[in-house]
Amino acid sequence: MFGGQNFQNEKAIAVIKIRAKLLHAARRWLDENGYVEVHGPTLVPAVGYWLGHFEVKYFDKKAYLVQGLQPYANVFVAWLGKIYTIAPAFRAERVRTQRHLTEFWRIEVAQQCELDVMIEVQEKLVAHICHSLSKEAVEMLECFDRSVMDLEGVQTPFPKLTYDEAIDLLQRDGFNVSWGQTLDWELEKHLSHRFSQPFFITKFPISIETFFHKSDPEKPELTLSVDLLAPEGYGEIGSGAQRITEKKVLLQKMAEEKINPADQQWYMSFMQRRAFPHSGFMIGLERLIQWICKLKHIEEAVVFPRLSDSVYS
Amino acid sequence: MFGGQNFQNEKAIAVIKIRAKLLHAARRWLDENGYVEVHGPTLVPAVGYWLGHFEVKYFDKKAYLVQGLQPYANVFVAWLGKIYTIAPAFRAERVRTQRHLTEFWRIEVAQQCELDVMIEVQEKLVAHICHSLSKEAVEMLECFDRSVMDLEGVQTPFPKLTYDEAIDLLQRDGFNVSWGQTLDWELEKHLSHRFSQPFFITKFPISIETFFHKSDPEKPELTLSVDLLAPEGYGEIGSGAQRITEKKVLLQKMAEEKINPADQQWYMSFMQRRAFPHSGFMIGLERLIQWICKLKHIEEAVVFPRLSDSVYS
Repeated sequence: MFGGQNFQNEKAIAVIKIRAKLLHAARRWLDENGYVEVHGPTLVPAVGYWLGHFEVKYFDKKAYLVQGLQPYANVFVAWLGKIYTIAPAFRAERVRTQRHLTEFWRIEVAQQCELDVMIEVQEKLVAHICHSLSKEAVEMLECFDRSVMDLEGVQTPFPKLTYDEAIDLLQRDGFNVSWGQTLDWELEKHLSHRFSQPFFITKFPISIETFFHKSDPEKPELTLSVDLLAPEGYGEIGSGAQRITEKKVLLQKMAEEKINPADQQWYMSFMQRRAFPHSGFMIGLERLIQWICKLKHIEEAVVFPRLSDSVYS
Repeated sequence: MFGGQNFQNEKAIAVIKIRAKLLHAARRWLDENGYVEVHGPTLVPAVGYWLGHFEVKYFDKKAYLVQGLQPYANVFVAWLGKIYTIAPAFRAERVRTQRHLTEFWRIEVAQQCELDVMIEVQEKLVAHICHSLSKEAVEMLECFDRSVMDLEGVQTPFPKLTYDEAIDLLQRDGFNVSWGQTLDWELEKHLSHRFSQPFFITKFPISIETFFHKSDPEKPELTLSVDLLAPEGYGEIGSGAQRITEKKVLLQKMAEEKINPADQQWYMSFMQRRAFPHSGFMIGLERLIQWICKLKHIEEAVVFPRLSDSVYS
């Protein structure tokens, strides 16, 4: 009835309880480590960071549903140093896979730091979540094919490979991929099957990244970016990057992406006075739950799933 | 720059920190008292509970932005008994007052109980929030005109007056109001100035309530409903009710309100099998903060306020 057609109540209830425990664990770690909880807007005026925004009739104007805390994160980070938000986000992509929701919740963290520090924060947070659930969600996990040992065994630092290494590895494994290509679902799945715990892929080419990701000073064709992948074929559950903080560079990138800086005026004037290193990441809550509970379809990770092609309750 | 035109950074930062502490305090109380945190959808298919929904282009369909956890709350309550959510909500009202945001966050609580129990939960939760902030937000509160003593002094049970008593009182104070009328902002403000701590108004006439509020068995012209008001002229910060749980009554009310039960089919078939007493309430987070910080404009209670008539960042 809810949470996918053939999903029993018992499992749906276990998912809800695991989600609540997961949120507890995440907040506990973030609070204890000095991150301030914030809320950014859901209704945003401009599009441009990603494709596939939902359009909202905002009186006689148009607004869009948010995809993440950028660029608002930068204001919070400037004021508070270390912040997090747990809030809904939206992607109007007409894809119907086992891992796409049009509405999902995200855990986003941002702080004044270089990417290396941010990666360490992300792995510690995810490990803390896994370890907490292995102790606090034993009974609920029994509803699924997941052993608590798997979660207990998640270790930091997480395995890391660069995008370049990932391409090499895929080519050696017989995939017809070339450098510069997006790692699509099939490629991600293959990589993901080679690991037994969450891992990172870092430094994606600048051509496939969103415009506000900072270039690698050592190799400007790469970005200081990172994806978090779940093992066992589940693939991407999070992504992050160090942000561009030089106004000149940002304006140049906006021009390349045909984004009108006038639509981002408040942010451009804010940026002018704030050029500190700043990184952040986002974890998709339902994707994390999908992996933790070993769910086939992401729609089983939420009670009232929103999908691109199904009538919804 | 943010949070209203003439609002300094120092105050904006204090508001963010108070908001974070407030959320902590609320969750702590709810978790300790056995409420399970849940997330309902933001994109909803049908309109009808209140006026002023924002319309979203959902591929080739229409969707709307949610105004609260109803009717989804009922499913969570059926499965879990006691639940809460902290999430954004939206009202497309073209009003520009000191206390209206088009996007706001809400703390919503629901459980299998009669209204009396729900009122007690609400006053305990709000008192716990006030007491916690009086201890944990001392420094931040110094940025505002609010003494910690005011928050420390909030006592349960909260003062309660019925709608009938409120009308009597307003008439005695010289207002030209008649029974059955909505308590508009001016009337609410007047009542609110008579109190020095949060208080309740209960049992509103059925004619001015949303359709799923249960009638008072003793006086069917009244509903088992309750508004939470802040003192000192701030007015409504929350509302709640006991919900209709008999399918027959709900269908009749839907017909009166010209709501098509076909749009609510999943819910109607769910209701058929679940007729337990069920109450819930919602507290507007920014309104609560506005009162706590004694802010003139609600737009000062959030960093990126969404208003009906202003261009937004």
